Amino acid sequence: MSSFCITILGSSGALPAYGRHPSAQLIEIQNRYFLVDCGEAVQIQLMRYQANLHRINHIFISHLHGDHYLGLMGLIFTMHLQKRQSDLHLYSHRGLDEIITTQFKYSHSAPGFKIIFHRLEKDKREIIFEDDKVTVETIPLHHKITCSGFLFREKPKPRRIDKTRLPPGLLLQHMASLKKGEDIVDDEGNLLYKNQDLTLSPRRSRSYAYCSDTAYFEKMIPQIQGVDLLYHESTFTVDESQKAIETKHSTAAQAATIAKKAGAAKLLLGHFSARYKDLTPLLEEAKEIFDNTLLATEGEQFTIAD
Amino acid sequence: MSSFCITILGSSGALPAYGRHPSAQLIEIQNRYFLVDCGEAVQIQLMRYQANLHRINHIFISHLHGDHYLGLMGLIFTMHLQKRQSDLHLYSHRGLDEIITTQFKYSHSAPGFKIIFHRLEKDKREIIFEDDKVTVETIPLHHKITCSGFLFREKPKPRRIDKTRLPPGLLLQHMASLKKGEDIVDDEGNLLYKNQDLTLSPRRSRSYAYCSDTAYFEKMIPQIQGVDLLYHESTFTVDESQKAIETKHSTAAQAATIAKKAGAAKLLLGHFSARYKDLTPLLEEAKEIFDNTLLATEGEQFTIAD
Repeated sequence: MSSFCITILGSSGALPAYGRHPSAQLIEIQNRYFLVDCGEAVQIQLMRYQANLHRINHIFISHLHGDHYLGLMGLIFTMHLQKRQSDLHLYSHRGLDEIITTQFKYSHSAPGFKIIFHRLEKDKREIIFEDDKVTVETIPLHHKITCSGFLFREKPKPRRIDKTRLPPGLLLQHMASLKKGEDIVDDEGNLLYKNQDLTLSPRRSRSYAYCSDTAYFEKMIPQIQGVDLLYHESTFTVDESQKAIETKHSTAAQAATIAKKAGAAKLLLGHFSARYKDLTPLLEEAKEIFDNTLLATEGEQFTIAD
Repeated sequence: MSSFCITILGSSGALPAYGRHPSAQLIEIQNRYFLVDCGEAVQIQLMRYQANLHRINHIFISHLHGDHYLGLMGLIFTMHLQKRQSDLHLYSHRGLDEIITTQFKYSHSAPGFKIIFHRLEKDKREIIFEDDKVTVETIPLHHKITCSGFLFREKPKPRRIDKTRLPPGLLLQHMASLKKGEDIVDDEGNLLYKNQDLTLSPRRSRSYAYCSDTAYFEKMIPQIQGVDLLYHESTFTVDESQKAIETKHSTAAQAATIAKKAGAAKLLLGHFSARYKDLTPLLEEAKEIFDNTLLATEGEQFTIAD
């Protein structure tokens, strides 16, 4: 079993309210730890949920509205004070490097580790992180300022060896061939075993899309088609549709419509306006359109099964 | 009865821990609301303790280490989103204006109210706020970067009219004369009543000194002599004296020594290092030297009696 887990650190819209904190999520995929957005007090939320902040090496900031990045500086100062050594990669649209370096300048200090800024391209899909197991790509969104969502995907996985059918005497190199989907042949190239007789199909590659902040925006649908889990902002209920249009946010019904059209397996709602103390109306509105919907509130963990 | 009340919003040192938040205090003097320092999540703390953030018109930042100002931007964004109209005065050493304007620039917005930056002078006492009832002056401190404490003082108060001894037939102008300490005379200048026969002495003028962050620094003593309430940072216990010297912070014993030498009436300890889960050792260490000492932890309110 390998892990794929999202922990909600903040679920509020621009104004924190009722114990809800601004946007932040911790995403763990096979022992890689990513942060997506860094609302104010994210370091306090990480401590609350017992996350080890030094395992976080990549932080993705959707856009430079305060409720999505104001916790970053405190987190970085804390990493610095706790003697972090390893590089920290920050992904953002233009400006984050200036915001951070200005603050280090006036604190008369410099981080004891390397910060690597990656500037996101405006209105363009791009792969911004890739290793042997995972890719992260940007999802262009439609908001008041340039804003990107993020799509986390596992890479295709190897075929699984069926231990119940394994003949004796196989070598390590044979096992590697099987995982790659190759048959086993002898030195002369003669077939010894067909791959399909000794292996099971690979586990599926899981995916998670984070889409916040955005107005209703159908252009994202092809990119997130069939995603296992979709987090889509739902700042308002449908009776505040006009407000949603003005502020370039979405209603719960719009989030659910995107989930349905994209064939997502599950939908998470978040980025709730401070006008809602009780979030049930948002959940019910979405479930009318897309039943498999949940509220992404502080401390909730969502695991995507293997 | 007029009010003079300090609410502790944050008591931690640079690293938040055990539910303690970075430095911030709300100070209310006769319906004037001041913030001193603005550690991360100060807006959330203000909401927690049901403070009306729109009544705050003056914010004093001691120095530009993150744990003393990182909550300011979130607070300002929230004031902006909540349609604040009135001016906001910010007092800080060099850099805060650049930090704030850079962040507004990249959020592609501008505050809907006027922000007036007041740059504090380095290593110099100065009166930075004054109205008919209150003055605020800076207290030069000794820290790793330029840092000022703040001394809040009520102005001298008028004599109080003793209603039990008031003769009939006095006019409004007579009352005003009495409050000023003048005798009451008739149109020819003849004495009708001596002031001291109809009035009581004025209530005393109360004072509060906020001294954080600082190493042990006796130069502050003359300025804070006889203060009613002294908040002095006590990051460490005495067994971490070497660490206090290196980081230019104080021990609890040093805070108590300053309180004693300054003849303060009461001492508050704060800015506690994350190494202390239990704060009792800090309190006991200070009380050995200066008995009237209290811990300034989150949510505590300290009132100075009239």
